[in-house]
Amino acid sequence: MVETTVVNRAVKKLGKQTFQLANPPVIVGAAAIVGPKEGQGPLGNIFDLVLPDTLAGEKTWEKAERKMLKDAVNMALQKANLTTKDIDFFMAGDLLNQIISANFTARDLGIPFIGLYGACSTMVESLCLGSMLIDGGFANNVAVAASSHYDTAERQYRFPTELGVQRPPSAQWTVTGAGAMVVSGTGIGPAVTHVTIGKVIDLGIKDANDMGSAMAPAAADTIVAHFKETTRQPSDYDLIISGDLASIGHSLTIQLVKQAGYDMSKNFTDCGILIFDPSQDTHAGGSGCGCSAVVLSSYILGQMKAGKYKRVLAIGTGALLSPTATLQGESIPGVAHAVVMDAYSLSGG
Amino acid sequence: MVETTVVNRAVKKLGKQTFQLANPPVIVGAAAIVGPKEGQGPLGNIFDLVLPDTLAGEKTWEKAERKMLKDAVNMALQKANLTTKDIDFFMAGDLLNQIISANFTARDLGIPFIGLYGACSTMVESLCLGSMLIDGGFANNVAVAASSHYDTAERQYRFPTELGVQRPPSAQWTVTGAGAMVVSGTGIGPAVTHVTIGKVIDLGIKDANDMGSAMAPAAADTIVAHFKETTRQPSDYDLIISGDLASIGHSLTIQLVKQAGYDMSKNFTDCGILIFDPSQDTHAGGSGCGCSAVVLSSYILGQMKAGKYKRVLAIGTGALLSPTATLQGESIPGVAHAVVMDAYSLSGG
Repeated sequence: MVETTVVNRAVKKLGKQTFQLANPPVIVGAAAIVGPKEGQGPLGNIFDLVLPDTLAGEKTWEKAERKMLKDAVNMALQKANLTTKDIDFFMAGDLLNQIISANFTARDLGIPFIGLYGACSTMVESLCLGSMLIDGGFANNVAVAASSHYDTAERQYRFPTELGVQRPPSAQWTVTGAGAMVVSGTGIGPAVTHVTIGKVIDLGIKDANDMGSAMAPAAADTIVAHFKETTRQPSDYDLIISGDLASIGHSLTIQLVKQAGYDMSKNFTDCGILIFDPSQDTHAGGSGCGCSAVVLSSYILGQMKAGKYKRVLAIGTGALLSPTATLQGESIPGVAHAVVMDAYSLSGG
Repeated sequence: MVETTVVNRAVKKLGKQTFQLANPPVIVGAAAIVGPKEGQGPLGNIFDLVLPDTLAGEKTWEKAERKMLKDAVNMALQKANLTTKDIDFFMAGDLLNQIISANFTARDLGIPFIGLYGACSTMVESLCLGSMLIDGGFANNVAVAASSHYDTAERQYRFPTELGVQRPPSAQWTVTGAGAMVVSGTGIGPAVTHVTIGKVIDLGIKDANDMGSAMAPAAADTIVAHFKETTRQPSDYDLIISGDLASIGHSLTIQLVKQAGYDMSKNFTDCGILIFDPSQDTHAGGSGCGCSAVVLSSYILGQMKAGKYKRVLAIGTGALLSPTATLQGESIPGVAHAVVMDAYSLSGG
């Protein structure tokens, strides 16, 4: 039962961090599940499932988070007309210590598992790696996913939500949600054409309630590397979307990228800005692995299929926040990875 | 500055989980740094550096752990005659929440970073992925690494070591150490010829002081998949080494693999067994990401270069232990990934 894949390959390494995939894999299925607050937001009617409460019938929030993650993967598989047996790798992570949401989901799915940790950059990290493994001939189908949960993340990183600690205006609201995509070597869907792998950048931000500022330098570094190495301009994209810088990080990133000579003021938004309405009192906006996972898996892919956006640059941004490191006086490093999703093939454009 | 790699590729997917690499990358440099207790063990004089104490001149154990990790990567680079600028990806992880050792090391190294979490399977997980990315044409040189520290891990997963809690005989001793390898598309060294990616397996063990039993089913599952899919026998390997099942998990794995028809009783050992002498009172033996990282990076690669072992099957085994999940009544799932390191090319055999 030896299956041999012979591919005439021409991976183009466009620079130190950016790769143009020779045989761009396509996103053939995706699903997003969110909590009630996210369901009340501007994208509420786009998600596949809005839970009535944050426990989802489970005894703990942690169990609810992994239920969302597992259900999102299964929904994405269903949409792709595939089963777990068709999937070569499950690549996922989450915000919880030891990525327990991903680990337990992998146990239940029974798919060979590659565990990742990239904080809120995880969805794009898994999409980058999964696409590279398909392009490299190692997989036909890969499931990539990420999740987060407001109550599990807050009690681990800051304070238990039951304590009712006041949140400063710079704080972001961890999204309760799980997003999953099935990426495939063949099929129809937006293609992943480029991957930019980021470095860990740290300009010294120490405030766990200001992650946007902590992540902005990493986001800008990866975005500028992407433009330089691809020789593309912001205007080459219909949309540039980060996840999840929220409002403060978003403005900072525009400024930092502008200093390098690229104007993103016209077509740059952020998953953390899109998911909540200012009236929802989330302060700077959404955050958490689940935020970019659900917005990319539902809204962005949907708009690409509908023809609104043809070429999208998505940047996953992670604040590598650790309560232990913070207590020991360390700052919060950031990391960002980027992918280009291209729907030109869908319309023959 | 477009660098195009055209490769006639023939990745052989030998089965659901195992890949035979078309252009096996080679391990061109490796280094291992350990703490004082590991230095007093049977392999003490083989490691590149034995620290005089577990703080290594730092103020906290966590800072000491990441100093070891960074120093190990830099030593491995030096041995490979490469600098950080030559490295395409740094792929690493550790046992600490949010993999802070790897994150802060990545920040200091400035190499594009892919963060991984696989508990004690991390070193082999990174070796698998790094080798696949090189074989797939995405990288020329990759640095893979993992670390652990007795005092940082114990206070996070069990009890602060200062408390002096008695350890049951089934407990393993988290190794203080960091190991790093530089894997390259060209050069001289043992080659990585096969990769087997494991599933998350959970037979219901709940005791954080019996991780060997928790990991054995996952180890056996991956080992049996490897033998079946490669149609190799245990005797095709000069050595089969897991990291880190220690004595209890080691015996259990031999039994489980025997049930599937493969006899590993003659040439199967474990990094956690090799690193400590029974007189060192570590009970079942060593554990922690750093254990397999330092034993593989120093002793095993050294023995391969010396011609003692030509073909080695290494299995990284991780207990996906989470204090939060344990408190919520969950068991400890395990995961295991395997690589074949082949030194036949070194001797022309």
